[in-house]
Amino acid sequence: MAGKVQAKRDALRSKLIKIAYNKIASDGSSAIKARELAAEAGCSVGAIYNLFSDLHSLIMVVNLQTFQELGDFVVGKVAQSTADEPVEQLIVMGHAYLDFASDNIGIWRTLFDVQGAGADAIPDWYWDEIAKVLALIELPLRQTISEKSDDEIKVMTRILFSSVHGIVLLGLKGSIFETPREALELMIEVVVRRFVENN
Amino acid sequence: MAGKVQAKRDALRSKLIKIAYNKIASDGSSAIKARELAAEAGCSVGAIYNLFSDLHSLIMVVNLQTFQELGDFVVGKVAQSTADEPVEQLIVMGHAYLDFASDNIGIWRTLFDVQGAGADAIPDWYWDEIAKVLALIELPLRQTISEKSDDEIKVMTRILFSSVHGIVLLGLKGSIFETPREALELMIEVVVRRFVENN
Repeated sequence: MAGKVQAKRDALRSKLIKIAYNKIASDGSSAIKARELAAEAGCSVGAIYNLFSDLHSLIMVVNLQTFQELGDFVVGKVAQSTADEPVEQLIVMGHAYLDFASDNIGIWRTLFDVQGAGADAIPDWYWDEIAKVLALIELPLRQTISEKSDDEIKVMTRILFSSVHGIVLLGLKGSIFETPREALELMIEVVVRRFVENN
Repeated sequence: MAGKVQAKRDALRSKLIKIAYNKIASDGSSAIKARELAAEAGCSVGAIYNLFSDLHSLIMVVNLQTFQELGDFVVGKVAQSTADEPVEQLIVMGHAYLDFASDNIGIWRTLFDVQGAGADAIPDWYWDEIAKVLALIELPLRQTISEKSDDEIKVMTRILFSSVHGIVLLGLKGSIFETPREALELMIEVVVRRFVENN
């Protein structure tokens, strides 16, 4: 009997995450409203708060899924490419990041939309997921940079990720530096090469 | 008589811009609501729409002011500094950008908050203001990069600005890479040096 209750809870939880994911994908995280989620899931508003402490927690669970999709997508792109030099791999990753962001703009933006909540409100598993994505970059970057400590490599990884993120963010359709795809790919390539090849 | 009417219009316009600026500074652009602005300015909602075609236009006027403040602030910091090498000047500018962003987070975020409106909805004078800020970076950057066309220098400027923007955006308090100020300053220095000194 307890198993059956748990299964129902799990099913509702999955359903709510899926609805929230789709809403964020089409309209961003501000589209997440308890009443609408409840109506769409066919549950009460109270049932949502039995499963998630607040709507921010639900959004963070959607973000967890997005981080995993982003990581898988980037890994897939590197595997498909013929890039064997570390710098080329980093460029493939940068371009994959651009692809993911432009094809998934709502869920991608929401990854970084932790403001207000404040860093204190970010659960540990969230940092773990970010670390997993950064570790993908760290590996080739480490091969290009000699004589750096682990901590320094981690900082370098954040700098490079943030730089590519800035280019993607400001260059995407509807942003202030809206830039055609090919030119944006070249900008990413330039920053990666300048960053990596300057040792 | 017409002069008096015009003076009243101008006074209300300035008042509305000031109120909007303060609201954005404390709560971001989503805090801009016609009813509240009207109440605070002591005018009707209709009077706002006589002066601004919509609230987005009002926000763009606030952004114009912010761009000018940002430009003045960066110029002031460079003037105060002892940096004479172009790369050092670029680092001072990057640090000034970090200072401005962290001290004026609401109005700074709103500068980039043109989504939804779409690039088509951005007036020409907005691009001119962005170009003025970018021209500050272009000047020292040009001195460090030889044999590039004007168009290439403009692209390099956008890449460098976007990179520093990404580092600031993700590193500020409340963001996912929240980083202490000194470490963030160092990250900016690293990206500027690697970008500029790799020719």
